[in-house]
Amino acid sequence: MSIKVGNYLFTRLKQLGIDTVFGVPGDYELALLDLIGESGVDFCGNPNELIAGYAADGYGRMKGAGSFVTTFGPGELSAYCSQAGAYAEFVPVAHVVGYPGRPAMKNHTLMHHTLGTGEFGMYREMAEKISVDTTVLMDPQTAPAEIDRCLTAMMQQSRPVYIGVPVDMSHLECDGTGLKTPLKTALSPNNASLETRVVSKLREWMETSKQPIIIVDGNAVRNNVADKCRVLSQLTGFPTFTTYMGKGGVDETTPNFGGLYTGAGTYEGVKRAVESADAVFWVGNVQTDFNTGEFTDQVSEDVTAEFQRYYVKIGKERYDLKMVHVLDALVNDLKKHPLTRTSTPSVNWDPYPMNSPERPAHLTQDYLWPTLGKFLQPGDFLIGETGTSAFGLGCSKLPRGASMYNQTVFGSIGYATGAAVGAFKAIRETGAFKRCILVTGEGSLHLTVQAFADLLKLGLRPVVFVLNNDGYTVERLIHGEDAFYNKLPNWDYSKLAPAFGPDHQSRYYGPIGTPDELDKVLADKQFAQAGCFQLVELKLGRLDAPLPLRMATAAVEAFNQRSERNGSKKL
Amino acid sequence: MSIKVGNYLFTRLKQLGIDTVFGVPGDYELALLDLIGESGVDFCGNPNELIAGYAADGYGRMKGAGSFVTTFGPGELSAYCSQAGAYAEFVPVAHVVGYPGRPAMKNHTLMHHTLGTGEFGMYREMAEKISVDTTVLMDPQTAPAEIDRCLTAMMQQSRPVYIGVPVDMSHLECDGTGLKTPLKTALSPNNASLETRVVSKLREWMETSKQPIIIVDGNAVRNNVADKCRVLSQLTGFPTFTTYMGKGGVDETTPNFGGLYTGAGTYEGVKRAVESADAVFWVGNVQTDFNTGEFTDQVSEDVTAEFQRYYVKIGKERYDLKMVHVLDALVNDLKKHPLTRTSTPSVNWDPYPMNSPERPAHLTQDYLWPTLGKFLQPGDFLIGETGTSAFGLGCSKLPRGASMYNQTVFGSIGYATGAAVGAFKAIRETGAFKRCILVTGEGSLHLTVQAFADLLKLGLRPVVFVLNNDGYTVERLIHGEDAFYNKLPNWDYSKLAPAFGPDHQSRYYGPIGTPDELDKVLADKQFAQAGCFQLVELKLGRLDAPLPLRMATAAVEAFNQRSERNGSKKL
Repeated sequence: MSIKVGNYLFTRLKQLGIDTVFGVPGDYELALLDLIGESGVDFCGNPNELIAGYAADGYGRMKGAGSFVTTFGPGELSAYCSQAGAYAEFVPVAHVVGYPGRPAMKNHTLMHHTLGTGEFGMYREMAEKISVDTTVLMDPQTAPAEIDRCLTAMMQQSRPVYIGVPVDMSHLECDGTGLKTPLKTALSPNNASLETRVVSKLREWMETSKQPIIIVDGNAVRNNVADKCRVLSQLTGFPTFTTYMGKGGVDETTPNFGGLYTGAGTYEGVKRAVESADAVFWVGNVQTDFNTGEFTDQVSEDVTAEFQRYYVKIGKERYDLKMVHVLDALVNDLKKHPLTRTSTPSVNWDPYPMNSPERPAHLTQDYLWPTLGKFLQPGDFLIGETGTSAFGLGCSKLPRGASMYNQTVFGSIGYATGAAVGAFKAIRETGAFKRCILVTGEGSLHLTVQAFADLLKLGLRPVVFVLNNDGYTVERLIHGEDAFYNKLPNWDYSKLAPAFGPDHQSRYYGPIGTPDELDKVLADKQFAQAGCFQLVELKLGRLDAPLPLRMATAAVEAFNQRSERNGSKKL
Repeated sequence: MSIKVGNYLFTRLKQLGIDTVFGVPGDYELALLDLIGESGVDFCGNPNELIAGYAADGYGRMKGAGSFVTTFGPGELSAYCSQAGAYAEFVPVAHVVGYPGRPAMKNHTLMHHTLGTGEFGMYREMAEKISVDTTVLMDPQTAPAEIDRCLTAMMQQSRPVYIGVPVDMSHLECDGTGLKTPLKTALSPNNASLETRVVSKLREWMETSKQPIIIVDGNAVRNNVADKCRVLSQLTGFPTFTTYMGKGGVDETTPNFGGLYTGAGTYEGVKRAVESADAVFWVGNVQTDFNTGEFTDQVSEDVTAEFQRYYVKIGKERYDLKMVHVLDALVNDLKKHPLTRTSTPSVNWDPYPMNSPERPAHLTQDYLWPTLGKFLQPGDFLIGETGTSAFGLGCSKLPRGASMYNQTVFGSIGYATGAAVGAFKAIRETGAFKRCILVTGEGSLHLTVQAFADLLKLGLRPVVFVLNNDGYTVERLIHGEDAFYNKLPNWDYSKLAPAFGPDHQSRYYGPIGTPDELDKVLADKQFAQAGCFQLVELKLGRLDAPLPLRMATAAVEAFNQRSERNGSKKL
């Protein structure tokens, strides 16, 4: 069973659920691209490589894995940012790189896209820092094993890999027998006796604690255990919380949904409930600055059971157990033997205390986010850009079956618009009708705005909310309130879709500057149907921000100033 | 003499002629940005980091050095492509990176923009591959020496460096005494006796050869010796040629200008003259695929005197001599003692044989480029994008004092539009009125189109020619003539400037589909005055390309297929 190397690669990607590969054509990869279709995979070209990488990341979050193709050198380098983000946030993305021919490399030929030094290995060495495995296929005899090793590492570790395909390799025949055996994507089972012991410890704690809670955090979503958490929440009835990075992974409409916890940035009732708990079952805990209100979270290790991809930790005791299996075992145990607790704390606080805001004369963040929450429908899918958008969406109540994500750890502005291309494409591929909503700020939009061309040409019919606050508001809140560098040039947002997709239907709403105007758009039936590309420009105060962000950025400034003072002392 | 670390850095940049620093604000660098103005340097924010990096490269090519500031992680990673290009093409660009605070790094704090691993060193390790020196300033006592070392390496090697500034470092005081002594930017003198010996050898060859010629190539321009070459050409009267990468560095109006040499892609008369020469004084020879018609150049090493930054080679003999000093010595010698040759070959061929094209019904590349050449005025400055634009401009005769460049070695599409921001800004800073012209293809434009917002907000009044050939024509010519992946979505180019700069004057001309329409625009006085942002959309055939490119891409395909065949044999 002989097969072309390129077909082997794309067939493997297809087996992993990747029906669309993103990328930007370049001459070293053109022959390879010919083989995509043959393997039953679609190719979606993007305006630039960073957008291609972001799209693959967004797609990977929806479908379990993503992939994109770029050319050696300029192409790949332009996408390292997206791959680093995928690394930080546990997204399996295969970056396929079209390399120069093997003879050119062997002879140190001065090819375009090199550094002009006759060397070819430096880019791969760079990519090693942001990949769990890398290869450049130099021999059709070893190519299948190299591909399999990389893709297995990608799935096992849920992180990006890098696969270089020289231009003279893609069409060579290799042994395709391996394709009959799917790659090992599932994590191997835990040590059974250790797992049993830990499950019973967890169970015991669930029985005996007075104020137990569950927090479904970002790494629960990123490691595909959010569904298991939902069952755990149902079976225990424990108050269940989320975080910024976990937002979208929890059903916010159940009676035991407790709210979003983010340290000092948390609403008072929610905060008290979390911080007074005596047992915190914290699944996929992500202890980064943006997820913890700049490290202001107040939950002791002693009361925490932490679940991570490769370990579970109860108090100070750490066990080498994969959470996916532990959660399965725990859920099964609870199903067979329900908890015997006589009572469980109920959620007697309001997770969304700002849900009935006053109507200010001009549109404010405090008005916007709860209102946007009410616009949402079951099944809606949202991407929130890092910064104002992500923090703001934390104040929007999600209806049942609505989901969302944002890039909390890596926090690359521009990500959301590019990732929307892939995430929305993946959703359309499922055939389900979901409204696809992108929420971003104008500063972030500027980085990757040409991704609109993809959203349009693919007919993804997104609803795009652009928060226009005349500059980098998050930065202003951190430092430089009136600084020139936080100012942005004025764009005409109504002209973007007509410029990037004149052959496609699009609608512009705005600028929206008052609660009345916002209400009117959100109540518009045609708008609500999301039948074409729709952009809503929201005019917001240049220093206005969602309450949690106001609290958190104050904490960032304090943190940085502490650093500065520490530094000064050293001089 | 105490000074803040940030001020020390920017003062040094200012001393190197950098009056504008580009970049994208991020919270780790905001404090640093406060200090830019204090140091007498302007900050120009850009829509994204890749554009900032390209802009710094374009600026550096004009002013001798460039710089841009990004944030740690996403920001810097997004700009590695631009820095790799600067490395490949000998452009001194200082990438200043705002780092997290030192305490956060020391404590392995899980900060945003990291990989979530508690590590902070990986990005710098990546940057090392594309920089001649790197540093992260950790101590105000050593900061001045670190900065000086990096910037000196940058100037000495004419390549990029990477300077990380933790957020708690920029405002600490350091010793500023060093600022009184300018950095050593000039290359140290050659060994005097060796230089004398080599100069006399060169001179002797100049006297005795029958058909001597000069080629001013890309590394002559990139190493700032184009002016010396001009004098050399005048003093010797030798037929003087350029290449794609050298284009713009030679006066094309002198009687001894011989044309552009690029191997098999060269006009017949020009080709014969170069390949029959018995002495080729080849300054800044760049032997990469795109510069040599895919390695089809036919000039023997035996008849070549090659001049490079760090060596001179006569025939097979290589001398450790810097060309800048050798050229100075040679020129001085020739001034004192003019050549005693009785005759020197004259240019009896036409360097631009296609300069009077026929008038086809629809606009063709063969009509476009000579016509564009006639539109050009003395002093005009052009940037040509890699691909069709750069190859096409090779067919446009430059008037005296006009100059241009393109990125021949690295060949990153999207570069030209970003670099235009920096190059045009640098030109405006000189106060001279020059028309600033960008020539790009629609495929390339898509990558970095938001740089238009910068061109508009800075009032740079560019003339932008967009070659719209409905896809990636260069790729089509190489491989995949009708392939789906070489197709691009349709954009409305008339709406771009109104979208990206509604507050600024702009004009759109197009779509231009016939010679008459082109002639009309180019003859329009208002257009020729270049008083505001002007975009000309040129409709060209989807497989049409400049003649040299048609020849060269055929050679690329042949080269890649040779590689494939070699590969096949190995299986």
